[in-house]
Amino acid sequence: MPSISHRSTTVPLSPFRKLIPIADEAKKKGRHVYHLNIGQPDILTPPKAIERFQAEPLKILAYSPAEGHQNYREALVDYYARYDIGLGYEDIIVTTGGSEAILFFLLACLDPGDEIIVPEPFYANYNGFGHIADIRVIPITCNIKDGFALPPIEEFAAKITPRTKAIFITNPNNPTGCCYAPATLQQLGKLVKEKDIFLCVDEVYREFCYGENTFLSALSLPEIDDHTVVIDSVSKRYSACGARVGALVTRNQDVTAAISRYAKLRLSPPGLGQMLSLYMLQDDQAYLNGVKEEYERRRNTVFQRLRAMPGVDSYLPGGAFYCFARMPVDDAEDFCRWLLEDFEHKGATVMLSPGQGFYATPGLGKDEVRIAYVLNEDDLHAAMDCLEVALSVYPGRKEASTTDLQRASY
Amino acid sequence: MPSISHRSTTVPLSPFRKLIPIADEAKKKGRHVYHLNIGQPDILTPPKAIERFQAEPLKILAYSPAEGHQNYREALVDYYARYDIGLGYEDIIVTTGGSEAILFFLLACLDPGDEIIVPEPFYANYNGFGHIADIRVIPITCNIKDGFALPPIEEFAAKITPRTKAIFITNPNNPTGCCYAPATLQQLGKLVKEKDIFLCVDEVYREFCYGENTFLSALSLPEIDDHTVVIDSVSKRYSACGARVGALVTRNQDVTAAISRYAKLRLSPPGLGQMLSLYMLQDDQAYLNGVKEEYERRRNTVFQRLRAMPGVDSYLPGGAFYCFARMPVDDAEDFCRWLLEDFEHKGATVMLSPGQGFYATPGLGKDEVRIAYVLNEDDLHAAMDCLEVALSVYPGRKEASTTDLQRASY
Repeated sequence: MPSISHRSTTVPLSPFRKLIPIADEAKKKGRHVYHLNIGQPDILTPPKAIERFQAEPLKILAYSPAEGHQNYREALVDYYARYDIGLGYEDIIVTTGGSEAILFFLLACLDPGDEIIVPEPFYANYNGFGHIADIRVIPITCNIKDGFALPPIEEFAAKITPRTKAIFITNPNNPTGCCYAPATLQQLGKLVKEKDIFLCVDEVYREFCYGENTFLSALSLPEIDDHTVVIDSVSKRYSACGARVGALVTRNQDVTAAISRYAKLRLSPPGLGQMLSLYMLQDDQAYLNGVKEEYERRRNTVFQRLRAMPGVDSYLPGGAFYCFARMPVDDAEDFCRWLLEDFEHKGATVMLSPGQGFYATPGLGKDEVRIAYVLNEDDLHAAMDCLEVALSVYPGRKEASTTDLQRASY
Repeated sequence: MPSISHRSTTVPLSPFRKLIPIADEAKKKGRHVYHLNIGQPDILTPPKAIERFQAEPLKILAYSPAEGHQNYREALVDYYARYDIGLGYEDIIVTTGGSEAILFFLLACLDPGDEIIVPEPFYANYNGFGHIADIRVIPITCNIKDGFALPPIEEFAAKITPRTKAIFITNPNNPTGCCYAPATLQQLGKLVKEKDIFLCVDEVYREFCYGENTFLSALSLPEIDDHTVVIDSVSKRYSACGARVGALVTRNQDVTAAISRYAKLRLSPPGLGQMLSLYMLQDDQAYLNGVKEEYERRRNTVFQRLRAMPGVDSYLPGGAFYCFARMPVDDAEDFCRWLLEDFEHKGATVMLSPGQGFYATPGLGKDEVRIAYVLNEDDLHAAMDCLEVALSVYPGRKEASTTDLQRASY
């Protein structure tokens, strides 16, 4: 029997996917599983857009241009103009989800062995795309005690080597929900200009910034047009994860030319998804406002519920729909597994993502979990009930230390 | 300004795409361009399937499982059963077009520096995917004089090295239209078993085999279940290139497990495309028969027209919707460019793909073109009129040699 490749055996698996078979087992036993482990929202995809999409006459579902349909790219130009970001449609390449944009960026801008600096915890699949592109992901550690804000800019500067090609961040952040301050972004902009490297920002959660947090796009930073690359997607914004429509945006024409070469190889991004996305961009302000308010309520709920759980350490996330939390357990993966295998409260349990897989530095995040608040408030409360009860009966629970008690009372 | 990667500057460009800007210029001048350069058919996507798809209630366009929706995978099991191919749904991984299946196969089964043996001319993007996966494409040359049938099996055996991981063929073939004889496939099956390597067959044109040609799927070859990987796609079969729905099929569970790792990274294949594809599989026999008859008529038209052109050398292709032809010119790329830049017949011209880009061996295919008969018969005749007139006035035309005259009279 011919053997598979060695490299395929070392692809890092998503931490939010690997417990899925165990969750499936729990469901087979009749247990309801509240999924707070994956960023799949329960929000409706814009109904009006679906209606228009389904009414569109369609005769031949042809390839779109490799870079995406021009009318959709032009509509995206208008979308970015809402943020006072000036672009031409040639600056936007439509991709198969944000995922493909990440891979294309790594291939187009990095050679094997080159490095990107990424604040950890980070979206774990960056590891996997880095693995395909054969590049190195260099982490810079953020800390739960300050809500995972970025460390001082000097720490970034200190990690830059001759192989560093980019600083790569997610803003607002998945998995931490941190929304980076404009001043922080400006510092990063200054640094990448000085070091002549790229600043690649995954901004797929752009629309979800809460309270006093201000979102600043990297595309708005002055004087680094040639350094800035933005990853985008309709998945989260319009609750249309299955559309598989993303984008890579940059004013650097060498980069768009390089990306185009990869785009041409795979012929075109999804055609139906692009058609739907064009409609989703129309009259979307009320929809986006509503969704944002909904997530903000959920965020507050999760924060308050976690805060009331003794021994649990968390913070108020500024954006996206995730937060990290430290659990009073030795091993969060064991705990997450136990939740699915051995725990039940009112016929249900909750699924979380173990934190460790979001870190590149070994040993970090071992007592942390990521919580995606993608369920409606009733379900969210039921899920938090499960977590609260579970923590009170979990055999592997750590005794609360003085520090834990202090944390619980903040 | 930060520099792009070295590797991105060496991605091989598709030969059927690189003349597109020149074609766009021709159109701007008001000239109609008959596109015989790309496999984008003018056939309707199944209207009933579109109707059902557009009537389907859709609330949340969620991620599908990474390996594709189970109901669609099960429908594909039934589809293969029509060919007496027995599969379980776990043997089928839904991909973003056949393109992604090709890349996933190379990543899952080959390590950097490993080799695949591919008969040339071949689908040029195999080069590009090989480039991303950092593997070597080893060509084995086929010849227009025997309609690009595969060379004797000994020639394959002679190319196998310790780094060879697969023989990779397209059947029916793009760009040659050759439909490989069952006996040829059986020989390949014997060889891959003996050498313990994979046989990967791109069968996206499976439904289009004409006249006395018999299609035999690699999945029907006995005793090489662990060696066989099939690439598939709805693009050509249902004239739904924009759906971006393909599949990778294998009974080798190590391979499906490895492919799954890559599939999980990019989260899911397109959701809308999968929905449409499920409907396209329903009651499709009349549609498929009609499309096949249409292509067979077109094939005959192209063959007869080319045959009547002095100095042109071609053959009757057995399948798919392509043929290769040798032109009485020194450089087919110059000729194709001239057709777009300097030629016009009744306000129109024709776009062909220069042959050289389909070969890996330098110098081959220089006087050849690929013709995709994707237009209706009226347009096809008009396009052939353009070609015929063009050849009679082309300044770079070669004087007909005795051999050419013999060829033209076959």
